[in-house]
Amino acid sequence: MMPALTALQPNFVFHDGRFGPGVVHLDGHGRIVSVDAAPLPGAARVQLRNMALLPGFINAHSHVFQRLLRGVAERPTGRAEDFWSWRTAMYALVDRMTPELLEDIATATYLEMRQAGYTRVKEFHYLHHLPVGRRYADPHELTRRLIAAARTAGIALELMRVVYLDATEPSQRRFQDASIDEAITLTDELHRTAGIPVGIAPHSVRAVSPDGFRRCAEWARLRGAELHAHVAEQPKEVAWCMDRHGRTPVALLAEAGALGPRTHAVHLTHLNDADVTLIGQSGTVAVICPSTEANLADGIPRLPELLSAGAGLAIGSDSQAHIDPFLELRSLEYHERLRSGRRCHLGPGELLTATTVRQNPGDLADFLLIDLDSPSLAGVPLPSLDAALAFGADARVIAGHWHALGPRPVTLRPDLLRAAARTVWV
Amino acid sequence: MMPALTALQPNFVFHDGRFGPGVVHLDGHGRIVSVDAAPLPGAARVQLRNMALLPGFINAHSHVFQRLLRGVAERPTGRAEDFWSWRTAMYALVDRMTPELLEDIATATYLEMRQAGYTRVKEFHYLHHLPVGRRYADPHELTRRLIAAARTAGIALELMRVVYLDATEPSQRRFQDASIDEAITLTDELHRTAGIPVGIAPHSVRAVSPDGFRRCAEWARLRGAELHAHVAEQPKEVAWCMDRHGRTPVALLAEAGALGPRTHAVHLTHLNDADVTLIGQSGTVAVICPSTEANLADGIPRLPELLSAGAGLAIGSDSQAHIDPFLELRSLEYHERLRSGRRCHLGPGELLTATTVRQNPGDLADFLLIDLDSPSLAGVPLPSLDAALAFGADARVIAGHWHALGPRPVTLRPDLLRAAARTVWV
Repeated sequence: MMPALTALQPNFVFHDGRFGPGVVHLDGHGRIVSVDAAPLPGAARVQLRNMALLPGFINAHSHVFQRLLRGVAERPTGRAEDFWSWRTAMYALVDRMTPELLEDIATATYLEMRQAGYTRVKEFHYLHHLPVGRRYADPHELTRRLIAAARTAGIALELMRVVYLDATEPSQRRFQDASIDEAITLTDELHRTAGIPVGIAPHSVRAVSPDGFRRCAEWARLRGAELHAHVAEQPKEVAWCMDRHGRTPVALLAEAGALGPRTHAVHLTHLNDADVTLIGQSGTVAVICPSTEANLADGIPRLPELLSAGAGLAIGSDSQAHIDPFLELRSLEYHERLRSGRRCHLGPGELLTATTVRQNPGDLADFLLIDLDSPSLAGVPLPSLDAALAFGADARVIAGHWHALGPRPVTLRPDLLRAAARTVWV
Repeated sequence: MMPALTALQPNFVFHDGRFGPGVVHLDGHGRIVSVDAAPLPGAARVQLRNMALLPGFINAHSHVFQRLLRGVAERPTGRAEDFWSWRTAMYALVDRMTPELLEDIATATYLEMRQAGYTRVKEFHYLHHLPVGRRYADPHELTRRLIAAARTAGIALELMRVVYLDATEPSQRRFQDASIDEAITLTDELHRTAGIPVGIAPHSVRAVSPDGFRRCAEWARLRGAELHAHVAEQPKEVAWCMDRHGRTPVALLAEAGALGPRTHAVHLTHLNDADVTLIGQSGTVAVICPSTEANLADGIPRLPELLSAGAGLAIGSDSQAHIDPFLELRSLEYHERLRSGRRCHLGPGELLTATTVRQNPGDLADFLLIDLDSPSLAGVPLPSLDAALAFGADARVIAGHWHALGPRPVTLRPDLLRAAARTVWV
């Protein structure tokens, strides 16, 4: 027997890089059959009035536990606050984290992501061990907590297990594996057993040697897995790398064989011309986290140049100072406008395509319901809808999430965050 | 007989520049009596659970009709888009505006402002006449439409009537009065009869001569009215002013006697050191519109220096690319972080105080209900609440607007914007 067909009928569907009229047909399992001009005969029709369908967003860089820092390190103290003073506050949180707290914070935060329109998250996970650096009975204890939280929240999780070797401060002992061999063994174990996509994440040039990057890149190639790293986020990091290794972080990764289309290089806020070329020619994915990069005063990447050179593009909520894909997309463009004094650098359709989940025939339906009457979109004509969404929308445009055969509601858990904050910020 | 007392009991009240526990007492007319630690005997108690009270925001710079440009001029065309190409799109809208369209757009947009947390708006109104420059039968026709729209929307309107004399393009004929005398006569008429606060707004140094600025400043002084002007928004404007008048726009205003605490200088994105001193020492209010200044690629003002020098501060939604006071506040700080590479420049309590309506005993209650469980605030501890609101909040934190003795609901009018867009963008 043929499975039943469902016809989703919004006003507009984002399809092939642009919004237009369209009907999405789903099979009896909620998998996409086709996008058509009109409902097929016999299909059960679902009218979605004043709505547009957009695939869910991918959050390509997340440190989920940092959600508890929201608002906490934002007040002038009279000292010269910068990235490094913020990191001190973050380490205070690291020192107090327990498996229970991590699962609670992650559950609430992944729900917040889903409500904001992210349906997939790549967690850059560096909190592995007990505060003194001892192992949990299960060395993957904290990873399993994240997996449980994502399951509860209904978000698709990918785990980028961080490799952090050259710890110099006590808080970093929670991140540090004994050796590159142990780090790769543990990552490989997860890759085989976790039941979700697992990649490897040499943290940064500060925390992993050139040889460490080479080993990580070899493992990623062998497994067809993603490699993520923080790259050229801070001038001090670039200067340190030049001083220590005689080359920029990007050049170091290039020589280690760690660039390429499966590599996600995060931030890239301090590149020289040669770096831009290396990232672009290798097809490396530039993961830009503009709300965090503004919050941490990291700077503004040379994004139009990176894209012209051939780089891929992804966004991330990173520090969780904000969880809002529309804020990220708008800021990609607006920061460039502030940097250059000119307008209209990035194509809105290309931005939405790059940062949302692929939705092809055979895929499970995973769409956001975009409310065309919401305050930030009301009255926008169809030819401008993609630009208004990419550059003018706010969190209120998301009316829901259509997953497989029906709406997938979100019930936020502010109680979990309140309780965690009471425990941590005593 | 004593009027009945009402005791508003939220979790926290913003009072004297910070959030803390508190009870707001109102008299029988909804006027504030006092803020106390506990309810007074006999007061009718209104529990506001999981809420904080914050006075409504002041939108100090608005061109309301530009709401219809949302999303419309945001796509790369291959040309070098800048402020001046955006202005061409804006003039196309100017050419098509009618009294009926203006009232509809203003009604919907003022409602959008109220829902976003603005309870007062200063409209920088330059659309005065028919397209060919002829007068309406009532020369205040379009102003009256704005007043009617604000009344319908329940927002407090102040009208800054623009003086625009040196028109050089056909579209500008709708802005242009016959002479400085006519402009001042019309402004004075409105000031005496409109029933709302009316100020004068010499548009910019491009549109008004130094003598025109002097005449506007004299009128404002005589009437105790505000004077608003666009000042140093674009490098080309500053260069033109240097070339034509041998001084910067700020120096021109200073010599015309047009600076001072009732002057609102809008943008200030291109100042030299002497300009910063002039604005600061005169106590002029710097009206920064960061979302528009990013959208239009205007640049980043030297805000911490201006405030240190003694300037006042206000925010505006300006071009209506975004209507969200939290976006403006956050961007004041974040743009400075991106400019300087350092964090934490502006005090969150001071920012909230500067940009919200004064709420003193005797004033009608005009408070926003802030939802402490909303996604961007959940779990934030009390000492960080002001920072989380000023730098981390989004539009979803506003649960409602308490006006006088009860909630003042907002019913948005997307239908008006849809109809207006169909008429204009044919």
